[in-house]
Amino acid sequence: MTEPRQQALAYVQQHEDDFLAALGELIAIPSISTDPQHRKDVRRAAEWLADRLRALGAQQVVLFEEGVHPLVYGELRAEREDAPTVLIYGHYDVQPAEPLEPWHTPPFQLVRHEDRLYGRGVADMKGQVMAALAAVEAVRAAGQPVHFKFLFEGEEEIGSPGVARVLQAHRDAFAASFCLNPDAGMHDRDMPSITYSLRGLAYFELWIHGPAHDLHSGLYGGAIHNPAQALAEILAGMHDEHGRVTLPGFYDLVRPLSPEERRRLAQVPFDEEAFLEQAGAPALWGEPEYSVYERITARPTLEVNGLLSGFTGEGSKTVIPARAMAKISMRLVADQTPEAAAVSLRRYLEQRVPPTVRWELIEMVGAPPAYVDLDAPQVQALAQALQTVWQREPLYVRSGGTIPIVAELQRIGVPSVLTGFALPDANAHGPNENLHLPTWLKGIRALVHFFYNLENEPWK
Amino acid sequence: MTEPRQQALAYVQQHEDDFLAALGELIAIPSISTDPQHRKDVRRAAEWLADRLRALGAQQVVLFEEGVHPLVYGELRAEREDAPTVLIYGHYDVQPAEPLEPWHTPPFQLVRHEDRLYGRGVADMKGQVMAALAAVEAVRAAGQPVHFKFLFEGEEEIGSPGVARVLQAHRDAFAASFCLNPDAGMHDRDMPSITYSLRGLAYFELWIHGPAHDLHSGLYGGAIHNPAQALAEILAGMHDEHGRVTLPGFYDLVRPLSPEERRRLAQVPFDEEAFLEQAGAPALWGEPEYSVYERITARPTLEVNGLLSGFTGEGSKTVIPARAMAKISMRLVADQTPEAAAVSLRRYLEQRVPPTVRWELIEMVGAPPAYVDLDAPQVQALAQALQTVWQREPLYVRSGGTIPIVAELQRIGVPSVLTGFALPDANAHGPNENLHLPTWLKGIRALVHFFYNLENEPWK
Repeated sequence: MTEPRQQALAYVQQHEDDFLAALGELIAIPSISTDPQHRKDVRRAAEWLADRLRALGAQQVVLFEEGVHPLVYGELRAEREDAPTVLIYGHYDVQPAEPLEPWHTPPFQLVRHEDRLYGRGVADMKGQVMAALAAVEAVRAAGQPVHFKFLFEGEEEIGSPGVARVLQAHRDAFAASFCLNPDAGMHDRDMPSITYSLRGLAYFELWIHGPAHDLHSGLYGGAIHNPAQALAEILAGMHDEHGRVTLPGFYDLVRPLSPEERRRLAQVPFDEEAFLEQAGAPALWGEPEYSVYERITARPTLEVNGLLSGFTGEGSKTVIPARAMAKISMRLVADQTPEAAAVSLRRYLEQRVPPTVRWELIEMVGAPPAYVDLDAPQVQALAQALQTVWQREPLYVRSGGTIPIVAELQRIGVPSVLTGFALPDANAHGPNENLHLPTWLKGIRALVHFFYNLENEPWK
Repeated sequence: MTEPRQQALAYVQQHEDDFLAALGELIAIPSISTDPQHRKDVRRAAEWLADRLRALGAQQVVLFEEGVHPLVYGELRAEREDAPTVLIYGHYDVQPAEPLEPWHTPPFQLVRHEDRLYGRGVADMKGQVMAALAAVEAVRAAGQPVHFKFLFEGEEEIGSPGVARVLQAHRDAFAASFCLNPDAGMHDRDMPSITYSLRGLAYFELWIHGPAHDLHSGLYGGAIHNPAQALAEILAGMHDEHGRVTLPGFYDLVRPLSPEERRRLAQVPFDEEAFLEQAGAPALWGEPEYSVYERITARPTLEVNGLLSGFTGEGSKTVIPARAMAKISMRLVADQTPEAAAVSLRRYLEQRVPPTVRWELIEMVGAPPAYVDLDAPQVQALAQALQTVWQREPLYVRSGGTIPIVAELQRIGVPSVLTGFALPDANAHGPNENLHLPTWLKGIRALVHFFYNLENEPWK
């Protein structure tokens, strides 16, 4: 008798058509989360997934309703009680299909043409959800090596407004060894990748108050500190001339990049010229001792997102504004926290704001950075699985953005490891969204390997 | 036979009632320039003044119509052809009388109660116009020592929108040795004053451009210079830590304050505590080597009047703004010019703006500073006149604001000397606006002396 892994891989090969048929059913549901007219379709997709989980044998399937659209939760226990728990994340909502003219096929119908599958959501990310469920089905048929939990949200394309509420309300339900999030794409069909880090966020509104009311600059100018100028002075001091953030203690919690990690990051294809061209800025900028890719993914930043003070209309008004406001945000990296970032900023303001004005800091949203060590068992297991299938070491990728679900899971102690099987030309969010079928099938096989590899990793 | 000066002073004494009756006629015309319903009243006041000038024997009386309301021009030549020409400025428009409840008398009726005259405009500035015309009438009856020109505008209370157009269009008509502007008040009934300097203005809009469009701070943050931050850095560098402006050459044209001038400025009553309280700011600020009064009147300044960039609404948006804007104005002192100030700013920007962003400077309004040397003949003549009547040296006052008519006259080569006979409790713009009758009569006598004193001054 062959070992379960081989049985599961054989199961995948035998059931390709079934997997495609299932994907076709899900693609046919126009679960456009941003469009109130498709509210019922979004729910239909949630229920379709819930049914699918029940069909797989899930003991518990729940639709959590705290958000705008249902969040599907389910659980599939392995026989071995002490196996690790993999929380599989996905979102079943999609972007609108408009504009429709450029589509060569009906967006809400799965169409195969040569080695591509077409349809809204095949890449982002119904195809990824179904790859994960296909792998789960296969390993379940052959012998389930790990516990599975499922978290399928219907709000990703609208910024996950309800996810924090659901996760806080049902914290225990989502407890897991880690989360597998297959919503990250690939750089190339030959370059499987693992995203092991995302930046966090801390967002503030800073107010500088001066006079009790706007003043006439002719009568007061020269003897009253102008709050707009004071704000500029305070903001200007937040970076040194090399683009480093000067807030006291800002970098204290930053986990240094090891030479090994830098070596791996250097392997991630990154075209600095194309980056600059996309930005349309006159030049690159930032910490000179880091590559551009490192600056935007592995280094924390401080940005001024908005400025408002005094007179901003047409023409001229000679006013000394009573106050000035800046929206300020920081992208955070491990092991920074929004709380520590706020302390840094307050310390800076305490030291720096002169007695000629007063300051007020409003702490707005915060999200912790997400990070998984490259030698963590789930990273090792996934890397090995991708290598087995693709016959090459995967890329180890850091992303500079902040994904709400990843941050919220991090907050409740569940680290995420991200991968995915959509190619750069997948046209996610655009017309003719597509999935490269051979890559997708490789992905399913890789996930089968991944689940079995996890069994062998030393879990605490 | 007594000399003309004594005859004129006697004329004033004999015609007090006539002067009051004339003032009463002008006060009765509700020439509220801001209220379209009073448009005809404003014109009526202009025509009343034109008639008055004709009655005085003015050879030329014209209503210039380039502005919103008529500007009354007139000329009264002296016999001696080589006498200096005094351009007498006044505005015949007034503020609305509302709110009416606090008035103890009908606002558009001249009422005498004890030693005060009440009515809208008695202080600001119909009473001052009529004081000047009374003095002109008296010296004309006794022997006119100087040429007179008259410039009575009807737009002062709405910011003199048409004055520049009229002055540019009829530049030659307004040629004069200097302008007497009796729209400045007194610090106290025992403190006659001469305002010999006003600050000018240069107004700019500075744009800092970075990326071609707003960028996602998660994807670009750390490697693109944020224009809002760059703007803050550029603005912050415009002052040193002592509040001095750092633009190259900014102070080059500033006429230094002589010890004598500083001594005189120190005599002007100025309550720093009351100033700070009115501002409502936490502390005073500015160049430490200058008094607060000097800072706001005799020193040039640079103010940020407005800031706008990126996201300024409720909540948070993690954007790197494509651009950032600041409204910047400078108050200028002699012998700075708006043109030189713009050159200073451009030089600073050329030196300071890094290659990671681009800048654009829009030059908006400009007004030259106004300044008359204290030893100029008109200042000497006026000082002597005030001293003769009040038996004390007048205060020599600098004002920090910019008065459009003064700046426009300065631009066509006519310096202004400002005085006036309204007291601090005159309630200009408020209810129960009033004029202290004995001070007003002293003012008329002082102007008589002034005109005769001018005859003796050595004019170039």
